[in-house]
Amino acid sequence: MPRILFMAGHRWPDYATVLPRALEEAGVAAEVSPDLAPDAVDYIVYGPAGDPAASDFSVFPRLRAVLSLWAGVETIVANPSLTVPLTRMVDPGLTAGMVEYVTGHVLRHHLGMDAHIVNPEHHWANRAPPLASERPVAVLGLGALGAACATALVSLGFPVRGWSRTLRDVPGVACHHGPEGLEAALGGARIAVLLLPLTPGTENVMDARRLARLAPGAVLLNPGRGPLVDDTALLAALDSGALGHATLDTFRTEPLPREHPFWSHPKVTVTPHIASETRPATASRAIAENIARAEAGQPLLHLVDPERGY
Amino acid sequence: MPRILFMAGHRWPDYATVLPRALEEAGVAAEVSPDLAPDAVDYIVYGPAGDPAASDFSVFPRLRAVLSLWAGVETIVANPSLTVPLTRMVDPGLTAGMVEYVTGHVLRHHLGMDAHIVNPEHHWANRAPPLASERPVAVLGLGALGAACATALVSLGFPVRGWSRTLRDVPGVACHHGPEGLEAALGGARIAVLLLPLTPGTENVMDARRLARLAPGAVLLNPGRGPLVDDTALLAALDSGALGHATLDTFRTEPLPREHPFWSHPKVTVTPHIASETRPATASRAIAENIARAEAGQPLLHLVDPERGY
Repeated sequence: MPRILFMAGHRWPDYATVLPRALEEAGVAAEVSPDLAPDAVDYIVYGPAGDPAASDFSVFPRLRAVLSLWAGVETIVANPSLTVPLTRMVDPGLTAGMVEYVTGHVLRHHLGMDAHIVNPEHHWANRAPPLASERPVAVLGLGALGAACATALVSLGFPVRGWSRTLRDVPGVACHHGPEGLEAALGGARIAVLLLPLTPGTENVMDARRLARLAPGAVLLNPGRGPLVDDTALLAALDSGALGHATLDTFRTEPLPREHPFWSHPKVTVTPHIASETRPATASRAIAENIARAEAGQPLLHLVDPERGY
Repeated sequence: MPRILFMAGHRWPDYATVLPRALEEAGVAAEVSPDLAPDAVDYIVYGPAGDPAASDFSVFPRLRAVLSLWAGVETIVANPSLTVPLTRMVDPGLTAGMVEYVTGHVLRHHLGMDAHIVNPEHHWANRAPPLASERPVAVLGLGALGAACATALVSLGFPVRGWSRTLRDVPGVACHHGPEGLEAALGGARIAVLLLPLTPGTENVMDARRLARLAPGAVLLNPGRGPLVDDTALLAALDSGALGHATLDTFRTEPLPREHPFWSHPKVTVTPHIASETRPATASRAIAENIARAEAGQPLLHLVDPERGY
């Protein structure tokens, strides 16, 4: 009987019931616990806690795979003690939450809601906004999250350009790839959404030059990873008026330090890394399915490629 | 050659080019003008200006039909001088704009955006909201606008109950009708969206008793018509905490008078009747299609039934 170490201790109360049930439903007879002797561990369910880069996976002699609870694996993928397969989370609940956040904030900016939510002058200016079909949106990253968000925006009528490292095909989305493709995807976009994995190749991808590709007064949404954006360039673009607003959900340091200029900048909305999170019920089913596959000798789903970093 | 009076004078600049073009594309050779001798007028394209109830249609001896530029016809339908067929506007642009507004504001309230848009304490509380699948929404009115909004909300995962006077079938929506159906549609809903036509039967449909059917802390969206809501009952429900918020786009008097309590109520968002508007390009095609049908002896689309009032 395989033994599964739940190595995201503070999250255990959310999983103590649903994960064993999901394993049973997947036909896996397994022991799952946040507390197992290292030499008994066959699989690790992993969520960052403390300093994940400091985790030493070499103490688990029987370890067969590590299954991340999160979609982003940048804190663990380069860990030199990790020599077994690593999977990232693809969870329908995580995807649904991200689609809600991205669709909601794109529509917020598209409709100009903030001017109605905060309207101390009681200003009545009844000019309807343009239709979504007149507002091009760029979605950077076309993985499970990016593709789902792009599809939801297409169904609302937005012209959507997508960008990914390698070419993807998302119905209704003008898909670009590679370095020149990025310029094309950003060029003239009124709203840009960042859903790229964080890798050495994507850090600071939204630098001063890329921000300047967007339409004048454009809006940046970053529910992806904080370091995708050059913060200094972002603040400069907001201050010059080149960018109209930034709604940021992820930051280089979280919680965002109280003295950080994003907090009080009039053109920045801070959301506290709530764009989406793994949902225990659906994530447990994803983990159980992968462990059932491993036990049956089948390849794992959503394997991380250490070379590309996601 | 039929002659079409454009009887919404202040809107003529928006239509002067696109309406003749749409007529030509529909194969209708017609003269269209905001200024025609009454005895030359075959059709009227009608938009409220001044006091529409005071319009006297008996001065047009050749008049064959009145085509409303707007979806709501409550200001003209009971005009006793109107004895020819009346059509209401079903315009893909109007529908698209309404879907954007309703989807955007439902997501705004679902995600709790206001607490991030206005956050002077720089509060970081990173608990993701529940998924849309846990947030039941009631859509009152399942005409062209209501059905399209309900469908968009279903595709985002919201459990949607719909209500209409007579039974409708909207895929994915739990459709109710009639007086008891209204109680069922509202019961426990977390967000209610009003897209009913204004008729004697729907005035004040959201009274104290109906508001109390919603879930504690629920949100009301009214992009339909102001008089659908009993304003006094709404303010009382907000003040007691029974309702959490109201986002209102339509009012008994527009522009909303500066002294109206809605303006400064902390739980009310006023949007200035911008949820949607008829879009000249697409509306012109709808009008041209209907005039082509009339000229060919075919029945008009979207005919108003004077008995039911829409």
